[in-house]
Amino acid sequence: MKAEIITIGDELSSGSVQNTNATFIAAQLHTIGIEVVKITTVGDDTETIVDALRSAQQKVSFVIVTGGLGPTMDDITTRAAAEALRRKLVLNKRALKAMEEKFQKYGRTMSPHNVKQAYLPSDSTLIPNPIGTACGFSLAKSSTLFIFLPGVPREMKRMFQESVTPVIKKEQPETSLVRSRVLKIFGKTESYCDQMLSDVIKREKEITFSFLPHYPEISLKFTMRGNDKKYIEKKLKAVERTITKILGDIIFGKDEETLEEVVGNLLRSKGATISLAESCTGGLITHRLTNVPGSSDYLERSLIVYSNKAKKELLKVPAPILNRFGAVSKETAECMAKGVKSLSKTNFGLAVTGIAGPTGGTTEKPVGTVFISLAHSRYITTQKYRFYGDREQIKFMTSHYALDTLRKHLIEN
Amino acid sequence: MKAEIITIGDELSSGSVQNTNATFIAAQLHTIGIEVVKITTVGDDTETIVDALRSAQQKVSFVIVTGGLGPTMDDITTRAAAEALRRKLVLNKRALKAMEEKFQKYGRTMSPHNVKQAYLPSDSTLIPNPIGTACGFSLAKSSTLFIFLPGVPREMKRMFQESVTPVIKKEQPETSLVRSRVLKIFGKTESYCDQMLSDVIKREKEITFSFLPHYPEISLKFTMRGNDKKYIEKKLKAVERTITKILGDIIFGKDEETLEEVVGNLLRSKGATISLAESCTGGLITHRLTNVPGSSDYLERSLIVYSNKAKKELLKVPAPILNRFGAVSKETAECMAKGVKSLSKTNFGLAVTGIAGPTGGTTEKPVGTVFISLAHSRYITTQKYRFYGDREQIKFMTSHYALDTLRKHLIEN
Repeated sequence: MKAEIITIGDELSSGSVQNTNATFIAAQLHTIGIEVVKITTVGDDTETIVDALRSAQQKVSFVIVTGGLGPTMDDITTRAAAEALRRKLVLNKRALKAMEEKFQKYGRTMSPHNVKQAYLPSDSTLIPNPIGTACGFSLAKSSTLFIFLPGVPREMKRMFQESVTPVIKKEQPETSLVRSRVLKIFGKTESYCDQMLSDVIKREKEITFSFLPHYPEISLKFTMRGNDKKYIEKKLKAVERTITKILGDIIFGKDEETLEEVVGNLLRSKGATISLAESCTGGLITHRLTNVPGSSDYLERSLIVYSNKAKKELLKVPAPILNRFGAVSKETAECMAKGVKSLSKTNFGLAVTGIAGPTGGTTEKPVGTVFISLAHSRYITTQKYRFYGDREQIKFMTSHYALDTLRKHLIEN
Repeated sequence: MKAEIITIGDELSSGSVQNTNATFIAAQLHTIGIEVVKITTVGDDTETIVDALRSAQQKVSFVIVTGGLGPTMDDITTRAAAEALRRKLVLNKRALKAMEEKFQKYGRTMSPHNVKQAYLPSDSTLIPNPIGTACGFSLAKSSTLFIFLPGVPREMKRMFQESVTPVIKKEQPETSLVRSRVLKIFGKTESYCDQMLSDVIKREKEITFSFLPHYPEISLKFTMRGNDKKYIEKKLKAVERTITKILGDIIFGKDEETLEEVVGNLLRSKGATISLAESCTGGLITHRLTNVPGSSDYLERSLIVYSNKAKKELLKVPAPILNRFGAVSKETAECMAKGVKSLSKTNFGLAVTGIAGPTGGTTEKPVGTVFISLAHSRYITTQKYRFYGDREQIKFMTSHYALDTLRKHLIEN
């Protein structure tokens, strides 16, 4: 079964905001085995919306449309839908009632603008919005089901999962299975991986391979379609084993796993604790580590020592070291890692210091120069890097290499 | 002048990665006054790509296409372009030479896969890629110029700015001007702003207003088209003044300004310094503050006191306070703010403590309970919040309210 996605809004066609809705819906459809043949984005213009809706018809089983269901003047999707699918707009009593209840609950008064939202194309089926005022609706035309959802991502996502997915799954023949695996890679290029795996890719004709660059990571996705669930699962598992053998430890995770999750799981499974001293990353490494639920099990503290004063006072980095080698140096990075480790009494101390730019670089230490140091009771290791890009990119690359350094030490030791 | 964007790749149509390319190109075109009528995304399928290219023809002046120019098997855009626009694929010597030079520079050997990339549709104009191996190309068909760029965002962006923008600008009649302003709002709903501004929106018929929700912020964008640059600028300025008067301090910034930039500029202009004590946000507030170049001018240090031990040792939060009121309490938040301020000798001490979840909540203090405290030599203010959503959302909302608390104090004092 195939689907098309139409996302509506001037904010999208003018590039003011990321179209996270299209990505979310595409990913959701993909996981339940629906192929998205096209994603179309148009602005808040009736004629263009009508065109997009009409050109979608007949080709696919589902058309998911988001945006333009709100109370404001530029919300014109419902009217365009009625025109495109040749229906009249009629007051939907269930929609009105749902809205009245919502407003009462929030203690707000309903304006005529809001009442407009309860007029839907005739024969629409209401899709309730549990967390907002704009209801969605669905509408069949020939063999295509059009599904209209609001554009607010939080509301759309909730409604999609609660009301749209079940409808689609019911329509789906049970025999067409699609299963995917994703292996996440860091540290080598797409070309390198493509070349290393060329034999496997040529041999496994039942499987589709694709490299998804997600800078600085690469996701290798392999997908198999068929009817025999057991066979598919077995085959994918075998291929995963082969690939893992070939690529080794540049594969850091699977499917939705993030680097910080992998590092967190390794720390927990080894019963190890960590403390950090961040300079140029300004808290980003710790922010990423603490995005993982339960990170307080292994993260004791982190000191963002932006000033030299803070480096001296908190981490006991000796003034002569700072004066002689500078704040961005192997020597300072080592003192920071050892300092935070001994202060916090953790198993690991991880420290970074560098020049995130755009100013502060010198010929000897240009913008992007970074030292990453990892201290453990038995050893200390410090590596110099040179990253490129703007401030945020340099911060991000530093955090990524710092986390990967920790990962590799946890695997090896 | 109008344009269409076509982005190609299974990673996009399957929702594996965000389509940041479409957003970037749309935003770039918007700023130079080109209206994007449609953005189409299709997977790596020749027939679908050919369809998308053919259906774009004739309607618009420019069609910008990204993706599928790489060396791997699933890169089929060039072939599809030749088919859609009825050209032969011929070896482009300039493209080959550029690639050979690139490979030599990187010390890598060129594979036959790579040579494939130098075959372009006849009469194509090469678009150089200064930072990667996949060149772009452009191709005129009737009155439409098709521009093909690689899908790697970093390469595409660079090529767009260096080679595409100049071409488009040259074609553009100088008389059609488009100017926009964006005011960024935090703390009220879209409906509230819409109602407050309904008179202005009705009165100013030359101007298009749109609300762009960018949760938890709202951007209010107002756009004017015309020929008289001076008149447009004057008009927009006047409308901006009127809106600012009506909405007051819920407007925190303009255009591309971020909350952390605004806070940073206020700190610098007042000559004030700040230190932070973060618990549930795990470094996010400091990460955001340090995304702003020059933040070391006002940020002294930040302590991420994840454990109670760190709160006691570093910030001198008294054990009885922690035992009696708990780590997530008004009392602890205040001690943290005062503690970090006095330790760092800064003008402000900002502290947050809360329960980011998904576990750790109680009936009395459910997940999402957060205390934000701001200490200054003359006063201390602490506020309790209840946020909703997952761990990352609660962290983000906490960081946003913490920064906004600081902003309001800097404006008022």
